[in-house]
Amino acid sequence: MDLLESALNPRSVAIIGASENIHKIGGRPIHYMQREGYLGKIFPVNPGREEIQGHRSYASLSALPEVPDLALIVVGGDRTVAAVEECAARGVKSAVIIASGFGETGAAGKEVEQHMLAKARAAGMRLYGPNTQGLANFGTGAIAGFSTMFIEVPPEDGPVAVISQSGGMSSMIYGLLRGRGIGVRHVHATGNEADVTVGEMALAVAHDPDVKLMLLYLESVSKPEILAQAAAFARSRDLPIVAVKAGRTAGGQRAASSHTGSLANEDRSVDAFFRHHGIWRVRDPHEQARAAQAYLKGWRPDGKRLVVVSNSGASCVMGADAADDEKLPMAELAQGTQDALAAKLPGFATTQNPIDITAALLSNSGLFGDVLPEVAKDPAADLFFLNIPVAGAGYDVERFARDAAAFEAAAGKPVAIAAWQDSVASAFRAQGMAIFPNEGEAIAVLAQLANHTALMRRPRVAAPAPTRVTLPQGTDPFLNEAQSLAVLAQHGVPVVDMQLCQTADEARTAYGRISADGKRVVMKACSRDIPHKSEHGLVALNVNSADQASQLFVQFWNRMDELQATRDGVIVAAMHGGRHEFMVGAQIDPVFGPVVVVGDGGKYTEALDDCVVLLPPFSAEEVQAALRTLKIAPLFDGVRGEPPMDIAALSQLAVAIGHFAMSASDQVSSLDLNPVLVGSVGEGAMVVDALVERR
Amino acid sequence: MDLLESALNPRSVAIIGASENIHKIGGRPIHYMQREGYLGKIFPVNPGREEIQGHRSYASLSALPEVPDLALIVVGGDRTVAAVEECAARGVKSAVIIASGFGETGAAGKEVEQHMLAKARAAGMRLYGPNTQGLANFGTGAIAGFSTMFIEVPPEDGPVAVISQSGGMSSMIYGLLRGRGIGVRHVHATGNEADVTVGEMALAVAHDPDVKLMLLYLESVSKPEILAQAAAFARSRDLPIVAVKAGRTAGGQRAASSHTGSLANEDRSVDAFFRHHGIWRVRDPHEQARAAQAYLKGWRPDGKRLVVVSNSGASCVMGADAADDEKLPMAELAQGTQDALAAKLPGFATTQNPIDITAALLSNSGLFGDVLPEVAKDPAADLFFLNIPVAGAGYDVERFARDAAAFEAAAGKPVAIAAWQDSVASAFRAQGMAIFPNEGEAIAVLAQLANHTALMRRPRVAAPAPTRVTLPQGTDPFLNEAQSLAVLAQHGVPVVDMQLCQTADEARTAYGRISADGKRVVMKACSRDIPHKSEHGLVALNVNSADQASQLFVQFWNRMDELQATRDGVIVAAMHGGRHEFMVGAQIDPVFGPVVVVGDGGKYTEALDDCVVLLPPFSAEEVQAALRTLKIAPLFDGVRGEPPMDIAALSQLAVAIGHFAMSASDQVSSLDLNPVLVGSVGEGAMVVDALVERR
Repeated sequence: MDLLESALNPRSVAIIGASENIHKIGGRPIHYMQREGYLGKIFPVNPGREEIQGHRSYASLSALPEVPDLALIVVGGDRTVAAVEECAARGVKSAVIIASGFGETGAAGKEVEQHMLAKARAAGMRLYGPNTQGLANFGTGAIAGFSTMFIEVPPEDGPVAVISQSGGMSSMIYGLLRGRGIGVRHVHATGNEADVTVGEMALAVAHDPDVKLMLLYLESVSKPEILAQAAAFARSRDLPIVAVKAGRTAGGQRAASSHTGSLANEDRSVDAFFRHHGIWRVRDPHEQARAAQAYLKGWRPDGKRLVVVSNSGASCVMGADAADDEKLPMAELAQGTQDALAAKLPGFATTQNPIDITAALLSNSGLFGDVLPEVAKDPAADLFFLNIPVAGAGYDVERFARDAAAFEAAAGKPVAIAAWQDSVASAFRAQGMAIFPNEGEAIAVLAQLANHTALMRRPRVAAPAPTRVTLPQGTDPFLNEAQSLAVLAQHGVPVVDMQLCQTADEARTAYGRISADGKRVVMKACSRDIPHKSEHGLVALNVNSADQASQLFVQFWNRMDELQATRDGVIVAAMHGGRHEFMVGAQIDPVFGPVVVVGDGGKYTEALDDCVVLLPPFSAEEVQAALRTLKIAPLFDGVRGEPPMDIAALSQLAVAIGHFAMSASDQVSSLDLNPVLVGSVGEGAMVVDALVERR
Repeated sequence: MDLLESALNPRSVAIIGASENIHKIGGRPIHYMQREGYLGKIFPVNPGREEIQGHRSYASLSALPEVPDLALIVVGGDRTVAAVEECAARGVKSAVIIASGFGETGAAGKEVEQHMLAKARAAGMRLYGPNTQGLANFGTGAIAGFSTMFIEVPPEDGPVAVISQSGGMSSMIYGLLRGRGIGVRHVHATGNEADVTVGEMALAVAHDPDVKLMLLYLESVSKPEILAQAAAFARSRDLPIVAVKAGRTAGGQRAASSHTGSLANEDRSVDAFFRHHGIWRVRDPHEQARAAQAYLKGWRPDGKRLVVVSNSGASCVMGADAADDEKLPMAELAQGTQDALAAKLPGFATTQNPIDITAALLSNSGLFGDVLPEVAKDPAADLFFLNIPVAGAGYDVERFARDAAAFEAAAGKPVAIAAWQDSVASAFRAQGMAIFPNEGEAIAVLAQLANHTALMRRPRVAAPAPTRVTLPQGTDPFLNEAQSLAVLAQHGVPVVDMQLCQTADEARTAYGRISADGKRVVMKACSRDIPHKSEHGLVALNVNSADQASQLFVQFWNRMDELQATRDGVIVAAMHGGRHEFMVGAQIDPVFGPVVVVGDGGKYTEALDDCVVLLPPFSAEEVQAALRTLKIAPLFDGVRGEPPMDIAALSQLAVAIGHFAMSASDQVSSLDLNPVLVGSVGEGAMVVDALVERR
């Protein structure tokens, strides 16, 4: 595994296009490396100068006394390509290409980019960029980047790594973290990702043991397998990854495609991918920065039960509202805790959660210190939120902050503070506590910690060995209904009892067999050319007799002929009631591979769009949990005296489809099972109609 | 109309329980009034002192040389009641009661509160509180309140009024606004609201012509009619009201009830009430404060089309994402605008919206100034957002800020800035621009402005004259189905063609009449004791003949007898298909009066909970717009070749129910119309089953 050592920790750096002027792109990296105490060798390359920023300057790469590990190419236009070729020829290990005007401008630029990549590949050289702001490792001082942010906001080595496709965002996330006083070690931008992607950098940087939090900014996921590998390694060492994938919405995706020219990923697949790999997705870099301190405290809560404490009744109410917004249950305090609180609080205070210690705090500055130790002991609490809307003479805010810090240490659990005034915030900040401007943000971060921890710890399902899939011969894009159902049945998916008939006599016999089991019978024409059979009168429910089956066969057969459709046959099938029509589908995403969709089925599936997306392999428990987020979920447990639905069977069916989709991903491009009839508990789930699309 | 002059602008204030110590509750108001230049008379009342803070102190209220307009009662316990009685006896116009321990503590406290109120009412004196932090008018310096926040954060008279049930929140909202440099005139807390409510104060304060923005904090709405009156007056003078109603969620409501003991309002009714009256509801005081400056600029956008401009492609993407989140459409720039942009921007920049002016800004600090005037001219734009993720040497941020300010002036439309770094924010702030820390907040505020403006300007529907409602005689809590349908039919609501039969012959005749119209026929037992008829086999679909109708009558009649149910008769009705089952309901809310619910109907109405709530009177257009927010809304326009549904007819039916509920609110406590069958456009909507509950 290439851990990108020559770029992240180079022994020597050549700057091709070096400048004496530290305000120029070719000057700034040298200035930064000197300022940050880089211990390797710096080789400025600039034929017009003898010396640059105190270093001997060389006329060309070939003039260097040794082959540098890393070359930073800041020259533009055609000279970029020449420099890459020269680096490759010389045996440079890694090259960072700053210039833009390549793949992001269209096909011609893409071709030049591919040419550079080919040259690099042939020589075993790794490429970063083009169109990048470069790399910066404040642990070693190896700064092959030119962001002005490193002047504006002084660096400090620390536990956070930022890896971003966008150079601008790499700097801005660094700036947001440093503005919160958080140290940052890695700030890397991958630009057009001709070679090295965010995922590959993430994998390498995750091996830096001092990195305790990794923040990613992406506009497209191009090589998911290596990002998945990075995520797996990160989980194995309890390193949280929090990602922004911009272009979440249709409008954002349009903007992204004109920004980077990259193909937009289907956003629900992106969500499913991140969830599958334990990466937490947030909306924007601000949400990344606001949660950083909480992660860095090492908080990994075991549960989601929240305790709210405030001196303001109104703040208790708003805290409880915010907890509900984030689906955090309020912890039920033990009677012992309540008794202890009652002994310490004034009579009109609340000893239940949320705990309103009341304005008595104004006359008794020790109230926080009295109350919090009792709460810290309560085993029902996983998360704590203190809402402190106080200001002005009479409040001993310094003492509150000391008491709260002691509480945090005693509880050993996450404690978030909302401080409404700067003066209050600074007292708590001085104690190293996690401060937020309001209850909404504080509680959102607590919820993120709890949910992300659960996601990271979730047992991973091992992919079962693929089964051999053999599709019927043919070149039609779709299998017909009978073929589709048969293929699924071969792979353990429960499908309706049906028979494809080619003659009226076969239909008569099939009727006899199916109705003999006491089942009602349905008949449907089967033609790959007629996707919506019912619109052409080619479905008959409640077939009553063998004679009727025979007549219907003839009728459907002739009708298909009138419609000039291929006559694959007529299906005679058992008719199932079921409780609810679901749909299960799978697509082979061009980036993420097999993706499974499960949701409300029937005629209005697309319009109502009530579905969940999962990446296989997954467990039936994961499907069940995901299905609980559907709009129709309240029906699962049975309404108005109905028994619960067999959601377990549906989930098992989805697992089977996940396995099938993984096994068949080289032959099949999509599956559409609709309806999947689900009965009451114990009655199972059954595919009644299916369409398999060949790849 | 009492505009509370004696409290908001008193000519004299007595402080009962006055103190020399400005850190005590009885000392602080005198200190504040002196500091703020109050021009009226100040009468300290304290038998133990000759002089207080330079004013002559009086032994008792009766010793004062004149009757004060306002008495601020800071004495506690029994002395509070005595002081109120004395004030009432002396003819004081308004009294503010600071002490707590009354209505919020339970029945006994409530009784004392009512006693004080009765004394005040009898004397024509208005009460504020008890359990309040008091009143503060920084326009006149009349500060009958004791918040320490007025020491911590110096007041400055300005265009905002804050009116809050919670004293703590009145101070905190003031603090948040002042922290943003915004001047605040009114800071009033109403506490337990024994007499004067937030609504009545809002009505009075809305008459202060210098108030340009009103912020309310509520935990319960107790007298909605006066708050409605305040909102109407505010709309008439273009004064926006932005409200927090805490206790939005079940958890918050539990906390609120233990905080103030107030009855929780049904939250969807609260939403409907605010919307009906053009009050914008936000989550918390932080959201009130963050939008204040934008309102105060007088921005009232005519539309919602957004233009995003940034020097960062990533910021353009995230801006477009945030716009989609807030349902703001991206403006389509005119070709002329795009041509003008193309002439000024580098070739690789985007001239479409979002406009990416690229990192070329680093080398050309005039780019913002070049581009923005062209954008300002485009008629397609209603709202502007500039995302400025820059920092460091090389960026002329001062110039960007000047250019942006000139743009704002030229455009005359809302311009929000996201500044990622403090140094950037301060340059734009110095130009008086609306600054936000990130794109999410900036665009949320722009969306709020646009949506709130539309809500304020929406034509109000005049309440039609009530019609006379006569319910059938009886004392049963519910009308039976036939009675319920008949009452609705009398009031212009389209109901199914049906007849209540008492004999088999009547059923036979009814069958003949209804089937003669070519309609299919359904029969249902009618008994007020059997709400779920189908569960007892008391519904028959597709009745085929007069003979069958007669037989079914006998069968249902006997079955009702077996069930020991009142036999109101058997309904013979036309059977309607309809396209979709909706539900329409109405309840008489104990606080808000008639409230209408419209949503997805059928068996799973409660479980799926897909409905909207409206306060009558409302227009059919308002219903249609609200129904577009339902989860099932994508079905309205027809899916897979279906014609659109007759949502106009459903909306008209909801208007009729609104009118009926207003007319019948003294006799009826709820209506439940389910299903209401809605057909394709032109086919109308029809009530098929109904249940009217008597009051």
